[in-house]
Amino acid sequence: MVVVMAAEAGEQEIDGVVDLVRAAGGDAFVSRGVTRTIVGLVGDVEHFSTLNLRSLPGVSDVVRISAPYKLVSREHHRERSVIRVAGVPIGPDTLTVIAGPCAVETAEQTLASALMARAAGASLLRGGAYKPRSSPYAFQGLGEAGLKILADVRAETGLPIVTEVVDPSDVELVASYADMLQVGTRNMQNFPLLQAVGGVGKPVMLKRGMNATIEEWLMAAEYIAQRGNLDIVLCERGIRTFEKATRNTLDISAVPVAQRLSHLPVIVDPSHSGGRRDLVLPLSRAAIAVGADGIIVDVHPHPEAALCDGPQALVESDLRELASVAAHLSPLVGRTLYLLGGINQPPRPPVRAASRR
Amino acid sequence: MVVVMAAEAGEQEIDGVVDLVRAAGGDAFVSRGVTRTIVGLVGDVEHFSTLNLRSLPGVSDVVRISAPYKLVSREHHRERSVIRVAGVPIGPDTLTVIAGPCAVETAEQTLASALMARAAGASLLRGGAYKPRSSPYAFQGLGEAGLKILADVRAETGLPIVTEVVDPSDVELVASYADMLQVGTRNMQNFPLLQAVGGVGKPVMLKRGMNATIEEWLMAAEYIAQRGNLDIVLCERGIRTFEKATRNTLDISAVPVAQRLSHLPVIVDPSHSGGRRDLVLPLSRAAIAVGADGIIVDVHPHPEAALCDGPQALVESDLRELASVAAHLSPLVGRTLYLLGGINQPPRPPVRAASRR
Amino acid sequence: MVVVMAAEAGEQEIDGVVDLVRAAGGDAFVSRGVTRTIVGLVGDVEHFSTLNLRSLPGVSDVVRISAPYKLVSREHHRERSVIRVAGVPIGPDTLTVIAGPCAVETAEQTLASALMARAAGASLLRGGAYKPRSSPYAFQGLGEAGLKILADVRAETGLPIVTEVVDPSDVELVASYADMLQVGTRNMQNFPLLQAVGGVGKPVMLKRGMNATIEEWLMAAEYIAQRGNLDIVLCERGIRTFEKATRNTLDISAVPVAQRLSHLPVIVDPSHSGGRRDLVLPLSRAAIAVGADGIIVDVHPHPEAALCDGPQALVESDLRELASVAAHLSPLVGRTLYLLGGINQPPRPPVRAASRR
Amino acid sequence: MVVVMAAEAGEQEIDGVVDLVRAAGGDAFVSRGVTRTIVGLVGDVEHFSTLNLRSLPGVSDVVRISAPYKLVSREHHRERSVIRVAGVPIGPDTLTVIAGPCAVETAEQTLASALMARAAGASLLRGGAYKPRSSPYAFQGLGEAGLKILADVRAETGLPIVTEVVDPSDVELVASYADMLQVGTRNMQNFPLLQAVGGVGKPVMLKRGMNATIEEWLMAAEYIAQRGNLDIVLCERGIRTFEKATRNTLDISAVPVAQRLSHLPVIVDPSHSGGRRDLVLPLSRAAIAVGADGIIVDVHPHPEAALCDGPQALVESDLRELASVAAHLSPLVGRTLYLLGGINQPPRPPVRAASRR
Repeated sequence: MVVVMAAEAGEQEIDGVVDLVRAAGGDAFVSRGVTRTIVGLVGDVEHFSTLNLRSLPGVSDVVRISAPYKLVSREHHRERSVIRVAGVPIGPDTLTVIAGPCAVETAEQTLASALMARAAGASLLRGGAYKPRSSPYAFQGLGEAGLKILADVRAETGLPIVTEVVDPSDVELVASYADMLQVGTRNMQNFPLLQAVGGVGKPVMLKRGMNATIEEWLMAAEYIAQRGNLDIVLCERGIRTFEKATRNTLDISAVPVAQRLSHLPVIVDPSHSGGRRDLVLPLSRAAIAVGADGIIVDVHPHPEAALCDGPQALVESDLRELASVAAHLSPLVGRTLYLLGGINQPPRPPVRAASRR
Repeated sequence: MVVVMAAEAGEQEIDGVVDLVRAAGGDAFVSRGVTRTIVGLVGDVEHFSTLNLRSLPGVSDVVRISAPYKLVSREHHRERSVIRVAGVPIGPDTLTVIAGPCAVETAEQTLASALMARAAGASLLRGGAYKPRSSPYAFQGLGEAGLKILADVRAETGLPIVTEVVDPSDVELVASYADMLQVGTRNMQNFPLLQAVGGVGKPVMLKRGMNATIEEWLMAAEYIAQRGNLDIVLCERGIRTFEKATRNTLDISAVPVAQRLSHLPVIVDPSHSGGRRDLVLPLSRAAIAVGADGIIVDVHPHPEAALCDGPQALVESDLRELASVAAHLSPLVGRTLYLLGGINQPPRPPVRAASRR
Repeated sequence: MVVVMAAEAGEQEIDGVVDLVRAAGGDAFVSRGVTRTIVGLVGDVEHFSTLNLRSLPGVSDVVRISAPYKLVSREHHRERSVIRVAGVPIGPDTLTVIAGPCAVETAEQTLASALMARAAGASLLRGGAYKPRSSPYAFQGLGEAGLKILADVRAETGLPIVTEVVDPSDVELVASYADMLQVGTRNMQNFPLLQAVGGVGKPVMLKRGMNATIEEWLMAAEYIAQRGNLDIVLCERGIRTFEKATRNTLDISAVPVAQRLSHLPVIVDPSHSGGRRDLVLPLSRAAIAVGADGIIVDVHPHPEAALCDGPQALVESDLRELASVAAHLSPLVGRTLYLLGGINQPPRPPVRAASRR
Repeated sequence: MVVVMAAEAGEQEIDGVVDLVRAAGGDAFVSRGVTRTIVGLVGDVEHFSTLNLRSLPGVSDVVRISAPYKLVSREHHRERSVIRVAGVPIGPDTLTVIAGPCAVETAEQTLASALMARAAGASLLRGGAYKPRSSPYAFQGLGEAGLKILADVRAETGLPIVTEVVDPSDVELVASYADMLQVGTRNMQNFPLLQAVGGVGKPVMLKRGMNATIEEWLMAAEYIAQRGNLDIVLCERGIRTFEKATRNTLDISAVPVAQRLSHLPVIVDPSHSGGRRDLVLPLSRAAIAVGADGIIVDVHPHPEAALCDGPQALVESDLRELASVAAHLSPLVGRTLYLLGGINQPPRPPVRAASRR
């Protein structure tokens, strides 16, 4: 931590900073410049940050020079992590495709979507039973009935389930059905929720807040990690900017940046970032090429009747192309598309799938 | 709702839109332009929005032309509302000052802050017992112990209490102490929390999400209103932009814009938007002059030792100026500064305060 | 300037930084922390910034700790400046109102607008003869014919003229008519234009770029100042954010922030920031209350027929209210509304106006 | 164009809109909804937009439903265009790599950079002789001396030249040396400059403004096209957002979006968007995979001594990887990397290169 003194700060004010830091058990080194003096602090940064050094007389700025997260940082864990979701890996050597309907509506729609997901090369099924919607008048999800549909479809298709949880008091219930819990973009700084999913023992997919910096995103992951759960996958899903041609602006650079700062896997959601079906394939290609550890896409058998986000769902004709893109681009970035039951094989029968979990 | 057809759309595709809307119980009027055709829809807009008209062949765009919120809209409730918090009004004729420490730390600090608040012209006391913090290593608040301190200080000073709630399962507990519940910026789209505070029978202060449009803010208020609670005060606290000279960018225009769209009172938080003590007074003046129904400011007896947001807290020497600003600017915008027991008077004894609530 | 070393940097890499800085004629002080080392640099910061220290092995970050502008900085010029435009002051003791039509269309419209401007309390007339428009199919201004109209109206009303220049090769021509040159938001980083207006000897109003940080705005002013022209007035006119309810987001905090960093006057354009007539008065009140040194507003005798920005122009009925607001709010922030020839008096005859300039 | 009436608008106000539009030579169709009426306009949209319909009584909103650009629009020119720069194609079938130093500093540095560019698979050489810099104290480019160096290096290496122009009065001079003119991000709405490059008969690379919407970018291209020059290449280079981990946020979605709206080629600048050398390769991969028609990257023989943007320049060891990425990814998106003189061959001797141009 570095304290930048104001140009007009005198010796007394510099001493004030040094004394306060030393009283707090740290040490301080003074560098006198031509127009300004800076004070470098040595010791417990978390503690220093409670000292409100910025409010001391003569202080112009306080600059933090080390990252405020630890458990998820790559500084202390150089190797990039592989997270396993019911056996399916997400990490540096593989490309993992997650697909499914935005919302679980019926058993038929969910099963049809799961079969589409497998055709698209997916090894995990996404689907929402609890939906955070901007309008109280919009479809809010089926709740536990939706979770049961997901479990039935998993039994039938062998695809482990990723599903969202929005209320801390639902975490245990959702975790009893899901293979991976999703924390959505609007909940990235819902700290009671982060703590609850940190305590439940299932992998977590943490979507980036639409207004969150990469640092805040990693701090949110740190909340989960601090409760003992390091099975976290980060998901870039677009940020909010002035540009309205797309629903959000996919921050493709966030993938390599987050991978350099953290050992956690980073995947991309091209469906929610673009908000348009015609952008899903180009953005999927970009995500794989930039080095994402996976992608998560919306599919729906009848997007024109979808209760949620129909306009961005892939349809049958897109699936083969997505599977082909995923299979052919992966090797160029040193990865293998991870497939349940091997590439080019029919979905495994439900019995094997069930035993796998 | 208006459906804009693509330039190349044919009769069949136009008919497709019209038929679908009529089948859904609505009506559709076709306007043929030189290069494009538009279809105006009449009927239940909420229902139309589930039709995914945008995914129909030949459709270029779908434009919503009426607001998606109803209960909080001024269209159906022309008069601006007055919300009462334990008797203290927030509305079009008054200016209400809310002040207090960002976080409740000790009984002494809270009482000292409350006395500072009164000196600054405040009629409501703010103070957080549950703090949403970006870092899991930062002070998270005292919890119920903090609520008890607030209640004691209310008894002593007569100031009704505004305090934040972050977890839906805490709403009843917090409501049993508080006079007004605060929903913070990070929770503006925490829908289970909105629904919980909508059901509990205490006024709610809803801070704008730092990335939320004014429309989304009003939709969040609609979530609360839909549960039967229309005692909502909107609080503008700055949005996130590219500019980093201030912690957030105070969107001062949001005050008149929201007041035109909604009948709910709108107040401003100059402390969190600027994030710097030296901006609190100028931004308070701007907020009052633009027509805000109130302001909420941080005060702290010892900002240099504050456990939360010390750099933006007002200190003793600022209070008289704030009180003067609030008293003298209000009449220029047709308001009266609302004071508990009159300006320059000692705090009313607890008995009167208690009977008032 | 501070060089932050990476956690894993060794002695050799630290020495590399120190040696390079000393070879460049500066000095470097090393502060060793528990996990990192920082190196504070002393000497010519501009020169250091060409050393690309960030690309040296072992360097994690380079942090600049003093402002990159000098001539416009308040560090070296503590007193806030008063700029005079044909005698009309803009500075810390006055409130100066600038008003007029967005674009000069006809002599009649310009004269009518100028009379409206005087009724609104204005002492300077704005009006564009060269208009930067997003569309090549939109009205681009009358050019020199417009400048002549402005000069005629000045002769008739006594109001000095503020008008925009968009091409460096037009600067001399425009300066031969104008009392103050305006550099528009899209040209804030048009460096040849900044240099041209810096060399011409007329005061300059520099609008903030809609995407510019306050620091970049001051750097743009530095470009003008560096050519010998320190008669610069900064104009905040809204920045581009995700919020689309207003044309731009007025960054009201930029006024006190820029005033603290620079000695130059700062005014506000409430018309272009809001883009809506109904917001001009509230935002004018906010601008005056926050401490702006002036405001600049659009007026038009027939907004429904304006060739440019009609929707935001004030009309007759608004003028008296604006004048009243300006007169009554100013004293509360220690200012006097500056009036040509006194309030409620007829415009001064052209002869006096001409002699005044 | 659609006029949305206010909920409370009466027949007289609806008639007012219809009458005004018909008086202007257009036609208007009225669709009456349950709560609102909309009026669809038929005729000359540009003319309608001067009517200020929004300021009429009873009008709530006016929505434009067709694009405001024409010449660059794909609506009237379905096939995507191929632009040729001294014979080098940029278009839908090829991938064109442009590389070179940010700024021309010396003949040696420029030649070395050009050889690096060829090694990286580039067929065009970039290099700035006129540099727009935020600070007046930063290196501003060599001017015409730099153009001469570029011409010499072109003669020696056979690489056609892309170089920036910042002042309308320099356009002829720069065009006499350059094969392609670059308009930089800060000048995207410098309309006199756009018009000047539109009139000079050389291809133009138009960088997206860092704050410009895609629509504004296309409008800027329309300015150039309207002067008779349709040889325009659009360049996405990152937009300004709240995220500061990268210099700008590369809006990767802008590539497919702009390609759908316009027939012009779209390339990507991964160097300026990321601002960090370690991001250039990942972002180049993303750009190629998303479907960009080319990329433009900074190279420098000695980045640690570069006078401009050293931290983002590729160095020798990166070149082979970039060439390999460009060669191997292109076929997966149906393109061929365009190479001067054939792949894997040494640079053609100057004689052939000169005859080619």
